Amino acid sequence: MKKTPHLSLSGARFSVSYSLSGNKKEALAKAKDICYEQTVEFPEDLIPEGDIGKEIVGQAESFKKIGVNHYQVHISFAVETAGTELTQLLNVIFGNISLKPGIKVEKAELPAQILNLFPGPRFGQAGLRKVVQVHQRPLVCTALKPMGLGPKELAEQARLFALGGIDIIKDDHGLADQPFCPFKERIPRCAEAVRKANRQSGKSSIYMPNITAPADLLRERAVFAKKSGAGALLIIPGLTGLDSMRLLASDHNLNLPLVSHPAFLGSFVTSRQNGLSHYFLYGQLMRLAGADAVIFPHYGGRFSISREECSEIGRGCGDRMGELKPTFPVPGGGMTRKSIEDMHALYGRDFILLIGGELHRRNGDLLENSRFIVNMLEGGG
Amino acid sequence: MKKTPHLSLSGARFSVSYSLSGNKKEALAKAKDICYEQTVEFPEDLIPEGDIGKEIVGQAESFKKIGVNHYQVHISFAVETAGTELTQLLNVIFGNISLKPGIKVEKAELPAQILNLFPGPRFGQAGLRKVVQVHQRPLVCTALKPMGLGPKELAEQARLFALGGIDIIKDDHGLADQPFCPFKERIPRCAEAVRKANRQSGKSSIYMPNITAPADLLRERAVFAKKSGAGALLIIPGLTGLDSMRLLASDHNLNLPLVSHPAFLGSFVTSRQNGLSHYFLYGQLMRLAGADAVIFPHYGGRFSISREECSEIGRGCGDRMGELKPTFPVPGGGMTRKSIEDMHALYGRDFILLIGGELHRRNGDLLENSRFIVNMLEGGG
Repeated sequence: MKKTPHLSLSGARFSVSYSLSGNKKEALAKAKDICYEQTVEFPEDLIPEGDIGKEIVGQAESFKKIGVNHYQVHISFAVETAGTELTQLLNVIFGNISLKPGIKVEKAELPAQILNLFPGPRFGQAGLRKVVQVHQRPLVCTALKPMGLGPKELAEQARLFALGGIDIIKDDHGLADQPFCPFKERIPRCAEAVRKANRQSGKSSIYMPNITAPADLLRERAVFAKKSGAGALLIIPGLTGLDSMRLLASDHNLNLPLVSHPAFLGSFVTSRQNGLSHYFLYGQLMRLAGADAVIFPHYGGRFSISREECSEIGRGCGDRMGELKPTFPVPGGGMTRKSIEDMHALYGRDFILLIGGELHRRNGDLLENSRFIVNMLEGGG
Repeated sequence: MKKTPHLSLSGARFSVSYSLSGNKKEALAKAKDICYEQTVEFPEDLIPEGDIGKEIVGQAESFKKIGVNHYQVHISFAVETAGTELTQLLNVIFGNISLKPGIKVEKAELPAQILNLFPGPRFGQAGLRKVVQVHQRPLVCTALKPMGLGPKELAEQARLFALGGIDIIKDDHGLADQPFCPFKERIPRCAEAVRKANRQSGKSSIYMPNITAPADLLRERAVFAKKSGAGALLIIPGLTGLDSMRLLASDHNLNLPLVSHPAFLGSFVTSRQNGLSHYFLYGQLMRLAGADAVIFPHYGGRFSISREECSEIGRGCGDRMGELKPTFPVPGGGMTRKSIEDMHALYGRDFILLIGGELHRRNGDLLENSRFIVNMLEGGG
């Protein structure tokens, strides 16, 4: 093929570190494969001379052994390959190679040209603390459940949780718009219940409905929730697409904190050899896409995640990413003194404890159970 | 907790078969876990008496051994748990349990109440054949590449491919809206090139741009592509969300065939123990979401997929799903007589052969190479 014209690229590059499984020869082949597959998707010997081979094809910047049959490579890409879009950035980072085994995205290093495209979390940790007026201790969040209860019963739960001092009262992530609990009936009822309880308690608890919806209804639900008095919004980006969360986060008229739920995203993180690292998915990606807080399972509970992976998420939520605000890690599960102490060790003071069904246990008194857990957090663990 | 009111459910249920890794005891525990985790997400002993436990919690309908430490369970769910939405249907099928290892969705059995919610492929195999006016042989598709070329150069490729008789000329999936190849310049140029070539050849080749875009730009790009003369649209649901594809497919004003690209979805299918089966992801889900044709890597190429998995996809694209039209499997890679013969064996006559970089090889003459491959297909393999 003929020589291609000069591309006039800026020279700025972003880089991604991948871990690669296999022996050295296999890992080197994978590294090279990423450089081509994620950009030109074209055999090396057919690439036209000139800028495409020099600038568009990814470049392996470093390669090292990190374990037995385990290597790490840093690959840089011209920022222009990603255009100005989160969708295309993800496509370059992990589009086609998601289909190949033994390649895992560990971390992205994004220059200002890319970070500046994404406002990131609108509220972040400080903003969300302001909303619920809690500045010293970790926040606490619980869920209205189980699926099958109606709006009235869930609103009564919401009232008790708010009176008990729970900061964020969210819909269970399985509540959508079912006939036994219609969205447009549930949201005003629960929001009203929390508002009333706040008036009684003097606190600033918020109701956070699940607005996950078909593509044509997502914004409508967000707006309806806001009008009904929701204090934040729960969204499942694995179902809506990550970019839909980014769009809501950048919506000045909406202007509500967004909290991401990990449903349907598990396949990206359940393998040690493939997919995305916890750091990248729950930390970097969710922040790029504007989550003010990121729900994930705390280790030791009913999900498979290690203490080290939780620690990674904590770092990913707070590590410097240009001007992007830090987001709250929201570990789910664990309401013993010991587990809360360990969360302090992992995340510092800035996390949101998510308690589900266990808050219903003890003596069955939701108000008293809520007070118990808030007291425990106020006691410093 | 008190007894819950009567839920007045229809009694209709959908069911999902999961394969489970582990010994019998572990697999039984996983089966039970799915029933609770995917619905009430609540400890069994705290479920209120009445309809929630009886109707909302999933029900294991059958359980059997399918291999060493490998079991299969059919679990049924009340159709009402999924509301009327693809997002929530996916949430019930694989939301939270995606985060647990050793659970894989094999197949869904959906009753009319659910299938009727989704029009599915608008064109399907027969409709797409009509668009390109090819009724007897498999169709053939290729991609404009490599990334880094400008609109003019890609339009020239498109012209040669169309003159050579390639039915569908698509953007490479890495072409988005980059400064070196802006969407709004590329699409009219390539569409025009194909139109001109058709006038010359008397054929009905189509140009299929990649409209994958941020959530707020997706429909705009689709409409722009249609106005520019695109004959079909390429979309990457792993980046936009599956439901965004469904929405475009149901758009009567748009009325163009949609072809899905598997980028970023690989993590769902690279593990034998976790995630989604090829049958479910590339067959059932893509059809529910309205893809008229589904791209995936053919086995033996540069991706990891087995012949049996390809065969699964072929079945998933065509197996009866209520009134949903069959969709085209689009295996990527392989332009030897032998590989094409094997595609016939796997998919019958109704597939679309996708050839990428290899079409540029042979003698470097795109027009002649295109004719060569079309002739091979017309010869019956």
